[in-house]
Amino acid sequence: MSVTNLHLGIFGRTNTGKSSLINMLTDQDISIVSEKKGTTTDPVKKTVEIFGIGPATIIDTAGVDDLGEIGHLKIQKSLEVIRRVDCAILLIAGNQFGDYEVRLIDQFKEHDVPYIIVHNKNDISKIAAITKNAIKWHTNAEIIDISTLNSTDRDLLINSLKKIIPETVYKNLTLIGDLVKPKDLILIIIAIDSEAPEGRLIYPQNLTIRDAIDNHCITVVLREDEIEDFLKSGLTPALVITDSQIFKSVTEKLPENIPLTSFSILFARLKGNLIAYLRGTPCISNLKNGDNVLILESCTHQTSCDDIGRVKIPKKLKEFTGKRLNFKIISGLSPLPENIDDFALVIQCGGCMVTRKQLSNRINPFIKRGIPVTNYGMALAYVNGVFERVVSIFRKFYEYDRNNPKLPFIEG
Amino acid sequence: MSVTNLHLGIFGRTNTGKSSLINMLTDQDISIVSEKKGTTTDPVKKTVEIFGIGPATIIDTAGVDDLGEIGHLKIQKSLEVIRRVDCAILLIAGNQFGDYEVRLIDQFKEHDVPYIIVHNKNDISKIAAITKNAIKWHTNAEIIDISTLNSTDRDLLINSLKKIIPETVYKNLTLIGDLVKPKDLILIIIAIDSEAPEGRLIYPQNLTIRDAIDNHCITVVLREDEIEDFLKSGLTPALVITDSQIFKSVTEKLPENIPLTSFSILFARLKGNLIAYLRGTPCISNLKNGDNVLILESCTHQTSCDDIGRVKIPKKLKEFTGKRLNFKIISGLSPLPENIDDFALVIQCGGCMVTRKQLSNRINPFIKRGIPVTNYGMALAYVNGVFERVVSIFRKFYEYDRNNPKLPFIEG
Repeated sequence: MSVTNLHLGIFGRTNTGKSSLINMLTDQDISIVSEKKGTTTDPVKKTVEIFGIGPATIIDTAGVDDLGEIGHLKIQKSLEVIRRVDCAILLIAGNQFGDYEVRLIDQFKEHDVPYIIVHNKNDISKIAAITKNAIKWHTNAEIIDISTLNSTDRDLLINSLKKIIPETVYKNLTLIGDLVKPKDLILIIIAIDSEAPEGRLIYPQNLTIRDAIDNHCITVVLREDEIEDFLKSGLTPALVITDSQIFKSVTEKLPENIPLTSFSILFARLKGNLIAYLRGTPCISNLKNGDNVLILESCTHQTSCDDIGRVKIPKKLKEFTGKRLNFKIISGLSPLPENIDDFALVIQCGGCMVTRKQLSNRINPFIKRGIPVTNYGMALAYVNGVFERVVSIFRKFYEYDRNNPKLPFIEG
Repeated sequence: MSVTNLHLGIFGRTNTGKSSLINMLTDQDISIVSEKKGTTTDPVKKTVEIFGIGPATIIDTAGVDDLGEIGHLKIQKSLEVIRRVDCAILLIAGNQFGDYEVRLIDQFKEHDVPYIIVHNKNDISKIAAITKNAIKWHTNAEIIDISTLNSTDRDLLINSLKKIIPETVYKNLTLIGDLVKPKDLILIIIAIDSEAPEGRLIYPQNLTIRDAIDNHCITVVLREDEIEDFLKSGLTPALVITDSQIFKSVTEKLPENIPLTSFSILFARLKGNLIAYLRGTPCISNLKNGDNVLILESCTHQTSCDDIGRVKIPKKLKEFTGKRLNFKIISGLSPLPENIDDFALVIQCGGCMVTRKQLSNRINPFIKRGIPVTNYGMALAYVNGVFERVVSIFRKFYEYDRNNPKLPFIEG
């Protein structure tokens, strides 16, 4: 079950041929190609099929060297794109390689984005040795010399691109495949409250049910009110997955011996950094009066009044800690605050609508600074006193990390 | 469970103020409003919240009176829009009401689209008695006189609009609510073949599971391979819902006494015309050599090689009838063929991605001509010899129609 597709960024000066490169990759004429300098001004996202690779979202950034007033804005936007892509192509032409390309390469390195350098328009001028040497001075990324007018160059481009695609992008990641066996009975408990959209299951619930049946499990889906009715059937589930918001009432109705977790915690493992969350969550108990807590919401869904990130979790955290806490919420993929050291705790949503790479780019800066991170499901489990219960199913995969006692970690 | 929202068309000459009308309806500034004649050239679709009414898709048609070369194209597009909307507002201004408005009114009537006539810009000139009389000569639709610059006119506009919204649009339609009782066990069988998208349930499956738990049922979701494992549990489902493509293997494994139907047949009732389908489906047996069969696909999903409408159903129909049949496939909402009498049978897909109105606009022309219509699920059931089995659950709602014996109908 591949949950997201490849996010590929195309970077480079105006008129180096970024849009024609996309047409070459996709074997279609989908972007605006005109001789007028700077045709594309905003990063344009396209979901395509890359020939010989598979489904991908290509982000065609603006000609970022346009240093006019909006040029500064364009550079800013391209750098934001670097934080969202799995890998990148840096396009140059006419042997032009300078400070601006070096700045992009530095950003690729800073955000662990694998990249290749493509010298285009070699029908007009081939790449010179002096250019190659200048590039090699800054990076050992692969350099290829092509012309997007020459279709036989496509294989060279695709093969180079294949070498930098992170393995996890197309690997069939599973939500529960390694936690269950074929024919197991899985119980999925769905909360229907004012936040639930009308008439359909939300994305994490949909994915989990499909992953369960893909693994040949028998999946029972019901609401909280029907838990007892189902348990009367005498059937015992191998695993129960619930919405994190109803941990309390579910754990009251469910026998202690039945393994339990939540959609959000499954997504923590699929998309987030489970070890960091396992370590970070118990730090909720270390919060002090006046501490700042950062809530990171990955999508900008319409927030209704009792929204998890803006209302429920802040309320529960204050009640649990008894402390005066300040909350800051950043939604969508808007830039992180400059002063990340001001935060005592970071709570990330499940990230179901973003890629693994995008989510790790959000939380890594905090993890690198030793700031505890957790996610919605784990935080709700902790403040409801069922944290150990809902993560114990993963324990068999992780050991207690003795060489990093600074951050408390549950016993291995 | 409201499955779709209101589709409202805004029609009228260039510069009558269509875009400002939308801003008034939505209390937001979402469309391009400029004094330049003909700002909006293509029908623009917007999903909005109409103040005091609810979620809606507003289609802002081009200034259709623009009779230049592309003007003809714009008129064509506006008429196609009439086939897709639940209701319409015809906007006039400056007491201009003529042949062009009359043509639109005729189209509203032909496609059973309720409408109101709004005279705008009454801050410049109020509607004259002579204009009202001219309008009343052609229609008894409600006429209101407003100015989109005057916010107090919004209530008048909204109240008039409320009167023409078809009741079914916001009525919480249910897929299975009237077929099951709370605590019933529902078995949902999912086919995973090369056409199934990776990693998620498709829209009809998602909606059906949500509708079942909304009705407090215990929903068991599994694949074909797990049917026998589940039946060994001794639990008997009150209703089984399957993908139509696996009717054969499901009916072989399922005891005869357990009610069975499919997603496509549930959608036939929700969106299509179940009586017409009940009558039309048995006409498959009347097909003759050289007959033309029309396949109507409502979305333009990527067709993979063993696509239901293009491969599976044509193949099964030829095998079942033993006749040489010609198939024509129309996908999306592209115009119907001129010569509909050439067709001996019409097979409509489930229509999960279109509104009830859009689907009925597609099949009504055939029903009115007495041409048999059916849908994917019913056709597959019929050629698999399980038609009676999978529609019997609905029989309690319908009687045999003695006064229309022309089309065979299953016994009431």
